[in-house]
Amino acid sequence: MTNPFFKNNGPFKLNEILNELNITIREINNDLNITDIKDLQNSKSNEISFFHSKKYKIIANTTKASFCLTTKNLYNELPKTCIPLIVDNVLVSTSLVTAKFYPDSINDDFDETAEEINNFKFSDKVKFGRNVLVGKNVSIGTNCIIGHNTIIEKNVLIGNNCSIGSNTIIRNCLIKNNVRILDNCIIGKHGFGFFPTQNKNLRYPHMGIVIIEDNCEIGCGSTIDRGSMSNTTIGKNTYLDNQIHIAHNVKIGENSIIAGQVGIAGSSIIGNNVKIGGQAGISGHLKIGNNVEIAGGSGVIKDIPDNSKVMGYPAKNIREFLKENR
Amino acid sequence: MTNPFFKNNGPFKLNEILNELNITIREINNDLNITDIKDLQNSKSNEISFFHSKKYKIIANTTKASFCLTTKNLYNELPKTCIPLIVDNVLVSTSLVTAKFYPDSINDDFDETAEEINNFKFSDKVKFGRNVLVGKNVSIGTNCIIGHNTIIEKNVLIGNNCSIGSNTIIRNCLIKNNVRILDNCIIGKHGFGFFPTQNKNLRYPHMGIVIIEDNCEIGCGSTIDRGSMSNTTIGKNTYLDNQIHIAHNVKIGENSIIAGQVGIAGSSIIGNNVKIGGQAGISGHLKIGNNVEIAGGSGVIKDIPDNSKVMGYPAKNIREFLKENR
Amino acid sequence: MTNPFFKNNGPFKLNEILNELNITIREINNDLNITDIKDLQNSKSNEISFFHSKKYKIIANTTKASFCLTTKNLYNELPKTCIPLIVDNVLVSTSLVTAKFYPDSINDDFDETAEEINNFKFSDKVKFGRNVLVGKNVSIGTNCIIGHNTIIEKNVLIGNNCSIGSNTIIRNCLIKNNVRILDNCIIGKHGFGFFPTQNKNLRYPHMGIVIIEDNCEIGCGSTIDRGSMSNTTIGKNTYLDNQIHIAHNVKIGENSIIAGQVGIAGSSIIGNNVKIGGQAGISGHLKIGNNVEIAGGSGVIKDIPDNSKVMGYPAKNIREFLKENR
Repeated sequence: MTNPFFKNNGPFKLNEILNELNITIREINNDLNITDIKDLQNSKSNEISFFHSKKYKIIANTTKASFCLTTKNLYNELPKTCIPLIVDNVLVSTSLVTAKFYPDSINDDFDETAEEINNFKFSDKVKFGRNVLVGKNVSIGTNCIIGHNTIIEKNVLIGNNCSIGSNTIIRNCLIKNNVRILDNCIIGKHGFGFFPTQNKNLRYPHMGIVIIEDNCEIGCGSTIDRGSMSNTTIGKNTYLDNQIHIAHNVKIGENSIIAGQVGIAGSSIIGNNVKIGGQAGISGHLKIGNNVEIAGGSGVIKDIPDNSKVMGYPAKNIREFLKENR
Repeated sequence: MTNPFFKNNGPFKLNEILNELNITIREINNDLNITDIKDLQNSKSNEISFFHSKKYKIIANTTKASFCLTTKNLYNELPKTCIPLIVDNVLVSTSLVTAKFYPDSINDDFDETAEEINNFKFSDKVKFGRNVLVGKNVSIGTNCIIGHNTIIEKNVLIGNNCSIGSNTIIRNCLIKNNVRILDNCIIGKHGFGFFPTQNKNLRYPHMGIVIIEDNCEIGCGSTIDRGSMSNTTIGKNTYLDNQIHIAHNVKIGENSIIAGQVGIAGSSIIGNNVKIGGQAGISGHLKIGNNVEIAGGSGVIKDIPDNSKVMGYPAKNIREFLKENR
Repeated sequence: MTNPFFKNNGPFKLNEILNELNITIREINNDLNITDIKDLQNSKSNEISFFHSKKYKIIANTTKASFCLTTKNLYNELPKTCIPLIVDNVLVSTSLVTAKFYPDSINDDFDETAEEINNFKFSDKVKFGRNVLVGKNVSIGTNCIIGHNTIIEKNVLIGNNCSIGSNTIIRNCLIKNNVRILDNCIIGKHGFGFFPTQNKNLRYPHMGIVIIEDNCEIGCGSTIDRGSMSNTTIGKNTYLDNQIHIAHNVKIGENSIIAGQVGIAGSSIIGNNVKIGGQAGISGHLKIGNNVEIAGGSGVIKDIPDNSKVMGYPAKNIREFLKENR
């Protein structure tokens, strides 16, 4: 995971982390330095990872993490180079460790560091409206346009030739070149991720960012949440219509077209050249292949292979659906 | 119904009210003072209520209202202590009487009384962004945070430790403690309630408010409308994701979780510990029990008993739905 | 099509247009002046039109255009008075010609001409909030109300007695009298229309406007896109609830009622006295008759005749649907 924004407060001694989790492990050097927490695929030596579902078994088999938060039922899948840290609830424990490394990734209050864009050097190269605010750790390329009342909160890198509309709020976001983001969007807010507990839910950290590649367009009133442990990404030349909701960790490929009011739930992966009709919904943790067409209003609840056309709720082969529903 | 905000212009003589409705009743002291108009359950002696559907028969049987707007077909259900006022259209008549008692409850133009937050005493205890406006009859507790361009219009009480995002508009709303309302929300606007007439619809009064209990979170771009004759309420520790629409008079219980783009139509009642998946819709005037799970994309058109899991459109038992849709 | 806003840069010589399209036609006076480009129904002599689908055959038969962009398969449907210009892709060619006549219709960057409303004469007759901006070519009637942070961008005519909420953005729009547009709406942005090409989609011009007739109400957070080659229109006394999306070229009749989160895809035509329940979706290029009722959550994928009640996805006769889904 590329994460240019959230400051890593580590390293921490293994001992300190084990204390936080209230677990003990014998025959280990508790004085080891742990440098970071990452997902199974991206973690390296001296880092800690997490493994909570059989779904990720294949990736778990080859993780390079030195330690992994997991359960009694899953730890056998880890390689010998990875020491399992057995816990009751992998996600809660992951959350606690992540919050320790990245305390800023939990706070989503408004950015009080934001000030008038005129105070920044790059404002020479930007055409901007009234009441535009910019936070810390923001960079904006040449030939960009930013509308009235828009707030570029902290941790945003914008490339060249981008046009941002009015009344839009962006934070924790990497925007490449020639991107158009229209009015009233909210991009880079934390996802809807928390551990439900009676009386007071526990929010988990969102240390991923939103990456919007070259030539994308994001329609009015859309929301794109930043990732929790990985990034939310919109591939090159993908266009989103109005009032779309893209949840945390979603990855959308290149040259895709997503019509109005579509919602994509957390961690789903959408291929290249995908077309999604208006109001369609895609459940979380699914894989939608390349060149897939999903008819408007469909509800997709399972993976869709490359080159398929689907329709219905639950979405199935479009010919089959239309035959059954004449 | 608790209604701390809309000023009651009564009492009015019964005579005056009967004139407004163009009806006459013999053998009654028309000089009586009527003090208020309320729903069947909450109205008391010397107050007027309304009864327009058999659905409310049981409540009608025991109402304590002295008078009740109703029809020829329903008035027999009222107790002897309640004098029926027979009208052609109960809701239109109710609307006229309510507008008489509460003229402010019809006007939803922007709040021109709003001024910069610095002018208010409580601004010492609040961390706030640029261009924050506050209307009359607003109080804000300690340790609150309010983002840029947010407008707290008239009639809003906010507790302690609340975080309001940027570009959000709130009016006629009671917000308890530790509540988080994210960016771009509109809370407390009148509901979508009116009497359709050719050429010019007749809006009915919305004198309910929105109540958001402790520890709730409301996602970006959500709209929660205030009630007409009762309040719209969000129970303790209930979390709403982005782009959710909660219509007037809806009551949601505690510890519920509602995913992105869900819509709940007017006057439906949702229990505690309810989980509603993304894009699901719930029709108006329904009762969803406790511990219910509604799958994403479902369309609920009838009451759902406690502890059920439903899916589909129309929503039915989830196992049944999945078996039929393999 | 009434188009009071976008400046026509024509006339152009036929020759110049043919060069742009890379086509040649023998035996024609290439020196002819072409004055405008319009749809089949509205184009007149010395104007150019476009015909790309059999669906429009009947209108094509009687077009008064002197020239028409079309294909080898369709040109026979045109009257003898209309000279076909055969192209590979009618819509791409139409787009190129339109962009030539109306270059402003492609640019949707924020309106940098907008300035404080106090600078305008009509501000005497308008009650307005803080930070209200107004662009060029805007006129506002008497007794109007405009909320805080609202931006009336260029090319907007507003009648009398209108109430616009806060945080709303309007451009390229004709708003008649007694119209209410609530908070956070975006009205008059270009539609989601473009030619998908790998790496960089080609946007086509949107030279239509949005017309909102007398007595309409538009709910919070709604988006209404302006038309491409015709206008998007909302008929008299039609009410829209919150979070509704109306795509380009849609035409909605009078006295219709559209509940929350409904989406209507491009170029569909909705009749008078139509009721659409919450979250329903209507596909593009459909015709929904007068007095139609569409149940909440429905997905409409074919034309619906007058006086029908439909439900389901795909939407069908409501009795049939409910019988099948008991």
